[in-house]
Amino acid sequence: MAGSTFGKAFQITTFGESHGLGVGVVIDGCPAGLTLDLEQIQSQLHRRRPGQSSITTQRKEKDAVKVLTGILNDETTGAPITLWIGNLDQKSADYDHIKTVFRPSHADYTYSIKYGIRDHRGGGRSSARETAARVAAGSVAQGLISAFGVTTTAYVSSVGKINCETPYSDLNLTQIDDSIVRCPDLAVAKTMIAEIEKIRDEGNTVGGVITCVIHNVPVGLGEPVFDRLEADLAKAMLSINAVKGFEIGSGFHGASMYGSEHNDPFTLDENEQIRTKSNYSGGVQGGISNGMPMYFRVAFKPTSTLMQSQQSIDSEGNKIVVEGKGRHDPCVVPRAVPIVESMASLVIADHLMRSRTSKLSSIKQTL
Amino acid sequence: MAGSTFGKAFQITTFGESHGLGVGVVIDGCPAGLTLDLEQIQSQLHRRRPGQSSITTQRKEKDAVKVLTGILNDETTGAPITLWIGNLDQKSADYDHIKTVFRPSHADYTYSIKYGIRDHRGGGRSSARETAARVAAGSVAQGLISAFGVTTTAYVSSVGKINCETPYSDLNLTQIDDSIVRCPDLAVAKTMIAEIEKIRDEGNTVGGVITCVIHNVPVGLGEPVFDRLEADLAKAMLSINAVKGFEIGSGFHGASMYGSEHNDPFTLDENEQIRTKSNYSGGVQGGISNGMPMYFRVAFKPTSTLMQSQQSIDSEGNKIVVEGKGRHDPCVVPRAVPIVESMASLVIADHLMRSRTSKLSSIKQTL
Amino acid sequence: MAGSTFGKAFQITTFGESHGLGVGVVIDGCPAGLTLDLEQIQSQLHRRRPGQSSITTQRKEKDAVKVLTGILNDETTGAPITLWIGNLDQKSADYDHIKTVFRPSHADYTYSIKYGIRDHRGGGRSSARETAARVAAGSVAQGLISAFGVTTTAYVSSVGKINCETPYSDLNLTQIDDSIVRCPDLAVAKTMIAEIEKIRDEGNTVGGVITCVIHNVPVGLGEPVFDRLEADLAKAMLSINAVKGFEIGSGFHGASMYGSEHNDPFTLDENEQIRTKSNYSGGVQGGISNGMPMYFRVAFKPTSTLMQSQQSIDSEGNKIVVEGKGRHDPCVVPRAVPIVESMASLVIADHLMRSRTSKLSSIKQTL
Amino acid sequence: MAGSTFGKAFQITTFGESHGLGVGVVIDGCPAGLTLDLEQIQSQLHRRRPGQSSITTQRKEKDAVKVLTGILNDETTGAPITLWIGNLDQKSADYDHIKTVFRPSHADYTYSIKYGIRDHRGGGRSSARETAARVAAGSVAQGLISAFGVTTTAYVSSVGKINCETPYSDLNLTQIDDSIVRCPDLAVAKTMIAEIEKIRDEGNTVGGVITCVIHNVPVGLGEPVFDRLEADLAKAMLSINAVKGFEIGSGFHGASMYGSEHNDPFTLDENEQIRTKSNYSGGVQGGISNGMPMYFRVAFKPTSTLMQSQQSIDSEGNKIVVEGKGRHDPCVVPRAVPIVESMASLVIADHLMRSRTSKLSSIKQTL
Repeated sequence: MAGSTFGKAFQITTFGESHGLGVGVVIDGCPAGLTLDLEQIQSQLHRRRPGQSSITTQRKEKDAVKVLTGILNDETTGAPITLWIGNLDQKSADYDHIKTVFRPSHADYTYSIKYGIRDHRGGGRSSARETAARVAAGSVAQGLISAFGVTTTAYVSSVGKINCETPYSDLNLTQIDDSIVRCPDLAVAKTMIAEIEKIRDEGNTVGGVITCVIHNVPVGLGEPVFDRLEADLAKAMLSINAVKGFEIGSGFHGASMYGSEHNDPFTLDENEQIRTKSNYSGGVQGGISNGMPMYFRVAFKPTSTLMQSQQSIDSEGNKIVVEGKGRHDPCVVPRAVPIVESMASLVIADHLMRSRTSKLSSIKQTL
Repeated sequence: MAGSTFGKAFQITTFGESHGLGVGVVIDGCPAGLTLDLEQIQSQLHRRRPGQSSITTQRKEKDAVKVLTGILNDETTGAPITLWIGNLDQKSADYDHIKTVFRPSHADYTYSIKYGIRDHRGGGRSSARETAARVAAGSVAQGLISAFGVTTTAYVSSVGKINCETPYSDLNLTQIDDSIVRCPDLAVAKTMIAEIEKIRDEGNTVGGVITCVIHNVPVGLGEPVFDRLEADLAKAMLSINAVKGFEIGSGFHGASMYGSEHNDPFTLDENEQIRTKSNYSGGVQGGISNGMPMYFRVAFKPTSTLMQSQQSIDSEGNKIVVEGKGRHDPCVVPRAVPIVESMASLVIADHLMRSRTSKLSSIKQTL
Repeated sequence: MAGSTFGKAFQITTFGESHGLGVGVVIDGCPAGLTLDLEQIQSQLHRRRPGQSSITTQRKEKDAVKVLTGILNDETTGAPITLWIGNLDQKSADYDHIKTVFRPSHADYTYSIKYGIRDHRGGGRSSARETAARVAAGSVAQGLISAFGVTTTAYVSSVGKINCETPYSDLNLTQIDDSIVRCPDLAVAKTMIAEIEKIRDEGNTVGGVITCVIHNVPVGLGEPVFDRLEADLAKAMLSINAVKGFEIGSGFHGASMYGSEHNDPFTLDENEQIRTKSNYSGGVQGGISNGMPMYFRVAFKPTSTLMQSQQSIDSEGNKIVVEGKGRHDPCVVPRAVPIVESMASLVIADHLMRSRTSKLSSIKQTL
Repeated sequence: MAGSTFGKAFQITTFGESHGLGVGVVIDGCPAGLTLDLEQIQSQLHRRRPGQSSITTQRKEKDAVKVLTGILNDETTGAPITLWIGNLDQKSADYDHIKTVFRPSHADYTYSIKYGIRDHRGGGRSSARETAARVAAGSVAQGLISAFGVTTTAYVSSVGKINCETPYSDLNLTQIDDSIVRCPDLAVAKTMIAEIEKIRDEGNTVGGVITCVIHNVPVGLGEPVFDRLEADLAKAMLSINAVKGFEIGSGFHGASMYGSEHNDPFTLDENEQIRTKSNYSGGVQGGISNGMPMYFRVAFKPTSTLMQSQQSIDSEGNKIVVEGKGRHDPCVVPRAVPIVESMASLVIADHLMRSRTSKLSSIKQTL
């Protein structure tokens, strides 16, 4: 009911806040016998970590993950897996000046009304710090789905008005981490970095878009009505801080197309496998994966914390000016790339497990 | 797990298929003491009904709703409410020619693999007929939230490349049903209708966009992490057939903006109530409603069923040609307007009830 | 939240009330490809039906089940299965005299306070009529688990102070339906029937106990912490009207034993399969099935409706006398036998499906 | 699906195992504004702690609870609350001799089959150590319900064949902790202690019964069908290690009674409040609380670990002898008293919150 849990079969619950002791996650329902690759988890966390480059917040966090429960000899036992990431850089004093202030486009006001109380230290639970726990859990999910060949790969496709127009299939996705902005088109990446540096120096922030591709999804994942694969992905993405939009396959552009253009004709590939010639569907039909690559785009608004003065109201209803203080990201998308991958992996892991009971013949097969 | 249930506190489960006896829904968790307005439910169903105008499918369905359980003297009793809509026009024979055919961009192939069996009669569970049950339940939800002053209003804002550019706040939303395409800008509506008629006559189909506005949402609805109000709305919308995209507030456009433009400054209105000057947030901050209007856009792909021949594959892997037969919508958005409103109402009803236990003082107040 | 849903993977939602149109159930998550045996469902419903013998209520109900959705050519399709049992004998007038009366040990008072409204016609949702829907769904579950060799068999082991002392393993369980009281020890059955007839003629009622045995449960069903097999069975049984107690294996008697007596030593049977010599555990260890028969006992209180005058209070707080009217069971256990079997089958079906994802090797095996 | 979560509105997820780093719990859905009484939590943990007296296991654990998340200035914020109890005394070496052994009536065998892997160190997740996390969470729930006047009080009513025959209402419940066995009848307590000492010295173990009383439950808690108050209590109790039975109100004895004896007549108390004269119902009617005290009994089997040699099988199928080693409880009931209270408090807290949305008038009242 309070919504800290995500997933039905592969289920995670996150906890913790930005300026408390740390953040963590319990994974319940991960099958026994999976090797836990702690380095891979840590490596994804590093990609999300603050202070990783000149275009992210300069707040320092090591984001070192610690396994609290559920692992024996590097393997899952079927018990809940708990991962914990302690907070290091808890300068709560940084936030004292906003104790009674409603910062524009932050959750200060809505939390105050909802809970009658507010954890002002860095936003408490509304802070993007909670996503570190998602990345840790998502990396375990990535480990699980990779045992079935599935990969989730995200990259920055827009920063403000600068777009990478090349479709994902024509990009070299191995180059994503070759630029600090995580755009695989390295020429576009340079322009993006320059833009972020410019707006950072102005004390401003800018939005962006992340594209994500999921390869090798088996046919038959997803449920036909409410738990369609794209519905669960949409929820997963819109649950990330600052996300304002989601589109899969042809997306909003598809709304302007004709059926005769948009339909994906079935054909056979060289191995006599059923494929579609085009892929406007984005790998899902009727909510269920059809074996083609799944791809979707996620829109992030500009960070709300500016290094500029802004008009606002305090909790007494007085008009005030909010000063720009603290250390924040001029643009969130470079650090959000592993978050998008993680949430996508969690959705696929959940549906992979759920798909095992769709037909009687499958259930009978399982020993 | 099989995903026919939606919502946590106000919870619905739909059942039924397009060419069986009918479709229905159980609503569990509707509070006792709500007057059920059967006419309002029927009226929303009529807006979704096939055969309602020259630009929708000509298949005839009365879509008469019947209350099976949960109501005594027109009032809810706290027991599950069951609504049933019988199928009239079940020409299954219409579908015999596609029994072994995988129609492009339909769910034929994915269902075959997932279930090892396929209900070919009109798509079975993948048919948009299931959404009649959602509209019935959504109308009950609308009745509940209207007791708190909340309204959900959707309209067609694009058909193919024809867009209604006027923002919702400058439109006369009482005119939505004045045109069969359900666009409140009646001049644009005419162009849209002409476009749909043209592509219909070509045996083609076209996509479109629906905009939805939710007025008077109380402050404090939504949960901060996974069950953000916008996340649940995104899931609700992407669970509708043919939907490929969702954006709230500034949406994808917001990704190209600067923080200094995008932030919504807090201010006081004439009644000393806290409001924001702009509303790029779309009424949610930190996943929780801030009392401003919520608005979002939903992208629908063109209907997959064409009255044209298409290349495809059958279940034996043979290359075949699918002929255009049956009676389908050239453009789904006019009929999808009440579906979008219904899913939005279900999300708000659920969160309205969930919000009652966020703080101890609220729980103590309740008698 | 309102609790009309049971199960996680094999999930049912019941609806309907005693004096409305009927009762029904949606089953979501039943795998595709299962043959639905409508006769077996009807036959279980007949065992629960009122008016079936001289020792049950004489109220007449045909309890004819109708399949509304989810079946094509007698086979499940993976879509939700809806079963409906119309009410015939709705003499609501029978209940007008209790409209404002709080009958002793009925739910009249608690419903009035909880809902602020009360469906007085036969108890509405609190009526045992709701269990007809459970029996219908439970029979589908029985069909599913029987595909894995599992059987659930219940019988009456006590009526008032008359007990069948013979353990289940020494009884001929094929004789259960040879007596109208459903006790397989036919000599004891006769005494039980005489006792029920006596108390019926006195306008009184009496309690009883049902014993249930589940054979051939595969090793490994059940989850280790909250969803232990015995915990889910306990919930299932205590959710049946009039049930006041549940015990599995040694039960309450086990509380008076020593560990040296109670422990079940492991051994090998003639097929080199691991078995236990004794079975005080009742087939579960650590919440998980160990392959031995599961057996448990369920205590039912005497029916609350008497054909005698009783002191009570009405909704205005006046002292009143409740007269004995209506047609009710002198003893509920004979008709409750199929209900116990059904709820047990639902628990096993749910855990059978859930068990398919406990270990990575199982998930990989499934095609 | 993996069942480490309990509750719907007030929801807990436990994690951790006996010989790992520790055990913990996340509480999601606790309302904001509740003062957390850390001393009360610690005090309940001390009542569960090993090594607390001569009649419990001599294994030493401090069971010091640490708050990881969700609390600001001793108050809940609405964020998930995480409590952690580190393991101190992890003599895994104690368990090396049972690495491949299936100990009688333990979960060794069932876990091996279910997970294909086994955490042999002290039973891993099947260990009663997991219940420390429940006690921590249950104490928070006790804090919440005590804000509404509700109290949960448990005591030992049987040890082996020694019973405390006095009904709870005639006992001085403030004396429960006056004896180390936690029976408020201090004469009976002495006999119980002597019995436990005797069987301990024989290397044997013995079962027992705990009685629990819940006072001041408001009328109207519980849901009418599957989530009856007694059904959720039964599940809660049967989910505790070693529990084999549950009965509420008249329980199994009620099955032998007549309706004329068993019915609880309604009457008015001195404050014109509706009460029942007798209370065989145990405070619930139709699954919903009626304002009378709730009381129930929970049967615990004797501890499976004996200090005696036992015949068994190892994982290779060889017949072996299991030697009695380790430090275990001769009788679990004295330490299980706070566990029963905690699980009962969790059920009441969950239903207290759920009950706030049963009727429209209540929802409207809440600000």
